[in-house]
Amino acid sequence: MARKVLLDLDTGIDDSMAICEALANPAFDLVGITGVFGNVSVDQGVRNALAVLHLLGRDDVPVWAGARHPLLWDGDGDFLPPRNIMDIHGENGVGNVELPDSPRAAEEKGAVDAIVRLCRECGGDLDIVATGPLTNLALVLERDPGALGLAGSVTVMGGAVATEGNVSPCAEANVFNDPEAASAVLTSGIPVTLVGLDVTMKEVLTREMVDRWREAGPAGETMADIVGFYVDAHNDWLAPTLGGCALHDPLSVAVAADPGLCGYLPSVMKVDLEGELRGRTIGDQSQIRNPDRPVKVALTVDGARFSQQLMADIERVCSEAPRP
Amino acid sequence: MARKVLLDLDTGIDDSMAICEALANPAFDLVGITGVFGNVSVDQGVRNALAVLHLLGRDDVPVWAGARHPLLWDGDGDFLPPRNIMDIHGENGVGNVELPDSPRAAEEKGAVDAIVRLCRECGGDLDIVATGPLTNLALVLERDPGALGLAGSVTVMGGAVATEGNVSPCAEANVFNDPEAASAVLTSGIPVTLVGLDVTMKEVLTREMVDRWREAGPAGETMADIVGFYVDAHNDWLAPTLGGCALHDPLSVAVAADPGLCGYLPSVMKVDLEGELRGRTIGDQSQIRNPDRPVKVALTVDGARFSQQLMADIERVCSEAPRP
Repeated sequence: MARKVLLDLDTGIDDSMAICEALANPAFDLVGITGVFGNVSVDQGVRNALAVLHLLGRDDVPVWAGARHPLLWDGDGDFLPPRNIMDIHGENGVGNVELPDSPRAAEEKGAVDAIVRLCRECGGDLDIVATGPLTNLALVLERDPGALGLAGSVTVMGGAVATEGNVSPCAEANVFNDPEAASAVLTSGIPVTLVGLDVTMKEVLTREMVDRWREAGPAGETMADIVGFYVDAHNDWLAPTLGGCALHDPLSVAVAADPGLCGYLPSVMKVDLEGELRGRTIGDQSQIRNPDRPVKVALTVDGARFSQQLMADIERVCSEAPRP
Repeated sequence: MARKVLLDLDTGIDDSMAICEALANPAFDLVGITGVFGNVSVDQGVRNALAVLHLLGRDDVPVWAGARHPLLWDGDGDFLPPRNIMDIHGENGVGNVELPDSPRAAEEKGAVDAIVRLCRECGGDLDIVATGPLTNLALVLERDPGALGLAGSVTVMGGAVATEGNVSPCAEANVFNDPEAASAVLTSGIPVTLVGLDVTMKEVLTREMVDRWREAGPAGETMADIVGFYVDAHNDWLAPTLGGCALHDPLSVAVAADPGLCGYLPSVMKVDLEGELRGRTIGDQSQIRNPDRPVKVALTVDGARFSQQLMADIERVCSEAPRP
C-alpha cells in the first residue's frame, strides 16, 4: 500500500519536479503540499504548487501556505528571492513559462497547523519531504514539540557536509536561507535523512533528456519548457562544468520512497550560525563519540538508477495528465 | 611478507604510539622515519623518534630530519609549537617524561632525499604514513614530481571533512600548520587515504587502559607515563567529554596496514587557504561529477577492533623491548 507523503516546498523548478516524482512514485500517495518562502516568495510558491498540480490533473491535493520569512527577520514584508535565484528559477519560479493559474486557492488554515494535524493523525504512516528552508518544520517543533517525531520519516533537501556550499563556501541555499530553523530541526534529536549537495549534484538532466518529455503531450511540453530553463541556467552560468541541471528536490522525494538509492553517514549535526560559516552543516565534534546519531547524511547515490527513474516518472505523470 | 613502511612524523605523543604500532604490526617492516615540525620543533621530533626507537630496541631504523617550517614562512628560525600544543604533548613532546636520548643521531641526508630515494627504490612495495604537516611530502612533489606516486600507498593523518576541526571550526591541526603543503599533496592526483578527525576521535584510550602497559616492563612503564600525560590532557581540559585520548596517529598506521578498519568516501578534495576557512579540507564542488576521486576519506571506523589491536600491539612491542 502506498505511504502518505507530505511535501514542504518553495516551488521553484526542481520543486516542480519533486511534485511530479511524488505523484508518479508508486510508493507514495501525496496527501498535501505546504509552502514556504525560498526559491520564490511564499505566495508565488503556493501559486506554483497549485498550478503544477492543476497541470497534472491533481486538483484533489490540498496546498497550505506557510512561513513568509525566516525565523529571524528584520524586514517589513515577505522574503523575496534575490536576483540570482530569479535567474535560476525564472521571475515566476517556473522558468518564466506561462503556467496557467489553478482554479483553486490554498487552504484556509496554515502550513504549521496542517503539518501538526497530519503528524498527529497519520503518525508513522506519514513521510515528510522538505525541500525549502526548514522554517515551517521549526515552527511545528515550537507549536507542538512532540508532533514531528511521530512521522514515519523526515527527509530534508539541504546542507553540504563533505562538499562545498552553493551560496557560500560553507552553506547550501535552503539552510542558508534560515540557519536557525535548520539548526532547530537538525539538532532536535528527531531522525532526519539529509539529502544535500553531497549527492544532489552527482546526477543531472541534460537539455536533450528533458526535451524527450515533449512526446508526453501538453503537460510534457510544459515541464520540458520549465526544466529546460533550469538546465540552461546551469549550462550558461550557474554550473557549466556539471553538464546539466542538478536534481536537488526530486532526489529527496525519490530517496524518501527508496532509501536504498543513497549511502549514508549517521551523524550528530550542528548548523553554524555566525560569520563566514553561517549556514554550514557539519558533524558536531563534541558529540563525535555519541552512539545516538539521528541525522543520516546521504553521501553516495546510485545516480544512474535515480535519473532513469525520474525521467520515466515525469514522462508518465505528464502523459497521464488531462489534455485540454 | 611484511610490506615496507615509512613514517613521516612530528613526534609527539600519538606519533610515539604510531611508532609502536608500525613496529608491532606484522603487516609492516619499518624502513625509516622522516621528521617534520608540528607537535614539536623538527629537532625535538627527530630526537624523540630516535629515543622511542632506542627505548624499543630498534636502533636499526634510520631517522632523517625534514622541514623546519611550513612552505610559507616569514619567521626567522624554526617552527616552534604554541603553548597549547605543549600542554597536550608536554614541553618535550613526550609528556615531560625523561626519555633517555638515543646514542644515535639522525642520518646525514635530509628527509626529502630519503623519501624520494625510497619511493624510487621500493616503488609499490613502500607504504608511506604521514602524521604531521605535509611539508616533507609537498617538497618531495617539488623535487621529483613522479616519485611519490610510485609508492604503494600514501596514508595521511589529517583533515576534518564531515566534522568540525580542532584548531579552528574548520581546520585540523596538521593541515592548519601547512595548508599549502596539504593542498599540494591532496590535489596532486596521487591516491591518498585521509584519516582525519572524522575517525581518529571515535575511539579512545583511558588512563586505566594505558596503565595496563606497566606490566610489560620498563618500556611499558615509559609508554604508560608518556601516553598517560596525553590522556590527562584530554580529560582535564582538551576534550573532557571524549572519555580518554584521541588516537590520531596510531590509527593511521593501523589503517595503512589494514584498510578494512575504515569505511571511505572517494572524493576530489580541496584545501581552503584563505581567511576563517584556512586549513579546511572539503570536497571540491566543481569536481563533484568527476568519476576520478583520488582521495579516500575515512568516515567510519571499527573502533573496538582497532583499540584492542593497539592495546595488544603496544603491550607486545614494550614487553619485547630490551631491559636495561
